[in-house]
Amino acid sequence: MPDISQRGQQMPPSPIRKLVPFAEAAKKKGIKVFHLNIGQPDIETPPAILDAVRKTDIKVLEYSHSAGNESYRRKLVNYYKKAGINISYDQIIITTGGSEAIMFGFFTCLNPGDEIIIPEPFYANYNGFAVAAGVNIVPITARIENGFALPPIEDFEKLITAKTKAIIICSPNNPTGYLYSREEMEALKNICLRYDLYLFSDEAYREFCYPPSAEGGQGGEYISAMHLQGLEQHVVLMDTISKRYSACGARMGALVTKNKTVYDAAMKFAQARLSPPGLAQILGEAAVDLPDHYFDSPKAEYMARRDLLVKRLNAMPGVFCPNPGGAFYAMAKLPIDDSDKFCQWLLESFSYNNQTVMLAPATGFYGTKGLGKNEVRLAYVLNLDSINAAMDCLEKALEQYPGRVEKNLVTGVSAAI
Amino acid sequence: MPDISQRGQQMPPSPIRKLVPFAEAAKKKGIKVFHLNIGQPDIETPPAILDAVRKTDIKVLEYSHSAGNESYRRKLVNYYKKAGINISYDQIIITTGGSEAIMFGFFTCLNPGDEIIIPEPFYANYNGFAVAAGVNIVPITARIENGFALPPIEDFEKLITAKTKAIIICSPNNPTGYLYSREEMEALKNICLRYDLYLFSDEAYREFCYPPSAEGGQGGEYISAMHLQGLEQHVVLMDTISKRYSACGARMGALVTKNKTVYDAAMKFAQARLSPPGLAQILGEAAVDLPDHYFDSPKAEYMARRDLLVKRLNAMPGVFCPNPGGAFYAMAKLPIDDSDKFCQWLLESFSYNNQTVMLAPATGFYGTKGLGKNEVRLAYVLNLDSINAAMDCLEKALEQYPGRVEKNLVTGVSAAI
Repeated sequence: MPDISQRGQQMPPSPIRKLVPFAEAAKKKGIKVFHLNIGQPDIETPPAILDAVRKTDIKVLEYSHSAGNESYRRKLVNYYKKAGINISYDQIIITTGGSEAIMFGFFTCLNPGDEIIIPEPFYANYNGFAVAAGVNIVPITARIENGFALPPIEDFEKLITAKTKAIIICSPNNPTGYLYSREEMEALKNICLRYDLYLFSDEAYREFCYPPSAEGGQGGEYISAMHLQGLEQHVVLMDTISKRYSACGARMGALVTKNKTVYDAAMKFAQARLSPPGLAQILGEAAVDLPDHYFDSPKAEYMARRDLLVKRLNAMPGVFCPNPGGAFYAMAKLPIDDSDKFCQWLLESFSYNNQTVMLAPATGFYGTKGLGKNEVRLAYVLNLDSINAAMDCLEKALEQYPGRVEKNLVTGVSAAI
Repeated sequence: MPDISQRGQQMPPSPIRKLVPFAEAAKKKGIKVFHLNIGQPDIETPPAILDAVRKTDIKVLEYSHSAGNESYRRKLVNYYKKAGINISYDQIIITTGGSEAIMFGFFTCLNPGDEIIIPEPFYANYNGFAVAAGVNIVPITARIENGFALPPIEDFEKLITAKTKAIIICSPNNPTGYLYSREEMEALKNICLRYDLYLFSDEAYREFCYPPSAEGGQGGEYISAMHLQGLEQHVVLMDTISKRYSACGARMGALVTKNKTVYDAAMKFAQARLSPPGLAQILGEAAVDLPDHYFDSPKAEYMARRDLLVKRLNAMPGVFCPNPGGAFYAMAKLPIDDSDKFCQWLLESFSYNNQTVMLAPATGFYGTKGLGKNEVRLAYVLNLDSINAAMDCLEKALEQYPGRVEKNLVTGVSAAI
């Protein structure tokens, strides 16, 4: 029997998925599980865009252009214009989800052995695409204490080697919800220009930027990497409609770049896989025609959820959750010994009113081993009542968890109690 | 401006697409172009499977399981059973077209620098996936003179090195239409077992196997790599519904393997990209419910087209086209100096009754430089009237083409006339 490849062995399993059997077992016992563990929103996919698919009169479901239907790309130009991003239709490649945009970006721009700097915690699947492409992720740690702001640019400079080829950012961020400020984006621009690095910008959560909450915290104006003047040749935008229109299953994304060499090379990868999904392109094209106020309702809903979630978390003894400026995630520091153990324990050994909560251990989002052991990610993809019930569970769970650790806030030293 | 990657540079452009601007220019001049150049059938996508999508009542288009919906995979088990392939639903990963199945297979099984032997001419996009994966394609030449039968197994053995890790076959074949016999499949099995090689089997055209035509030629029974007893741990089946149901644009395929190590590693690549397209899975699942006789009509249609096309080609002076046993392609040897020049000339400088024909130069399907210069691939994806009209064009074109070459059938020496 032949061996599998080294990358097949090195490929990381999904850090979230490993808890799934425990969630299934809990459900079999009759326990209701609140899923705050994955970024699968409960928001309805706009009926109008599903109707566009329902009404299709296609007779032969043909290959589309490898870059996606021209009609769709031309419409997207207007969508991006509204976000202050000025591009033309031949600077867009429609991809199979944001995932394929990330993959095309890595394969087009990076050689095996090249290094990409990524502020951690970061979207765990970057690891998988990095292994596939043979490139090395160099994490730079953002700290929960300052809300996961961009680490100092001097810290980036310390990590730059002859192999460094790119920086990836995701703003608003998954998993932290942090929204980079104009100053932070300008700092990133400067370092990319100084060291001639690509800036890969994952902007899946563009629409979901919030003002600071009543209690303060982070938030404000959305800045795209595409807004950075003078960085046009360095920016590769990786986009998706998954979160924008709650259409994760469509698998419809885009790679956008003004760098023609990158575009032309990425197109060769696009041609090799022939075309992006055809039915989903109908849905994506219809989405561009949604009225501008479409986002008002999901955005208000997410903001209310954020405010509730963060308030509830910070009211729990020993818990700290910075108020995030965007997306639909929050990271919380818990008084626990080990977030993997705790998340498993929640599913395996705990229930309150016959309910429990599924969270994502933050360890899966850090590249530096050992980090994230007392942090979890919470996706506020459930309604306010469910969030309240889930927070009731978490509050009780933290009281009962045998691995609870009290942190001495003065010395910073932890001690099991 | 940072450099793009080496693989981005090495990535081959689509050999077919380079002629597209010439076709567009011809159309602008008012010339009708018969597209025999690509495998995009004109056969209607079964209305019942498009209706299944039209009738969907989903409210939230969620991520599916990374291996695809379990309901779809369970149904596919029955589909495969009818093809004599006995597998279980957890040996199937639903992919974004056959393309992603090829990619997962390469990345899961092969290391950079590994070699894959492929009988040439072969599906040109294997080149792209090989560049992406950093693996080297070692072509072994099948000859038009014997209808592109499997080259002698001793010739395979001569090419095997310490780096050889896999053989790819495609039967019925794109671009030749050749259908491997049971003896050829058994020979492949033996060599894979002897040298412990993976057998990647691209079976996109499974449904389209024909008996030999009245004039003789190739054809017969379909043999899957999955039918080969004792080779279960070596076979990775790469499949797609694109051609089966004329649904190329859906992007719905499958990787199937009984090798659990390969399956588990491929699943990690599948998890990194989250899930296959959701709307297309509805279509794919509905397709399994089509009555068994569904294939009778497209198959009869393709067979009639093959018979007409091959007859017309072989009636032209200096043309030789073996009668293929499957798929919807034929390769023809033409009395021309250079198939790339000829195919461009057909679009740029020729018309007959204000019509011309677009063909695929065979050079793009050979890994060995210089081969295929007097061969073209014809996809019989148009109806009989169009094929007749296209053959009228080709016949006239061969009379007029300035680069016509007469081959001395005795000496085999070509001479421009």
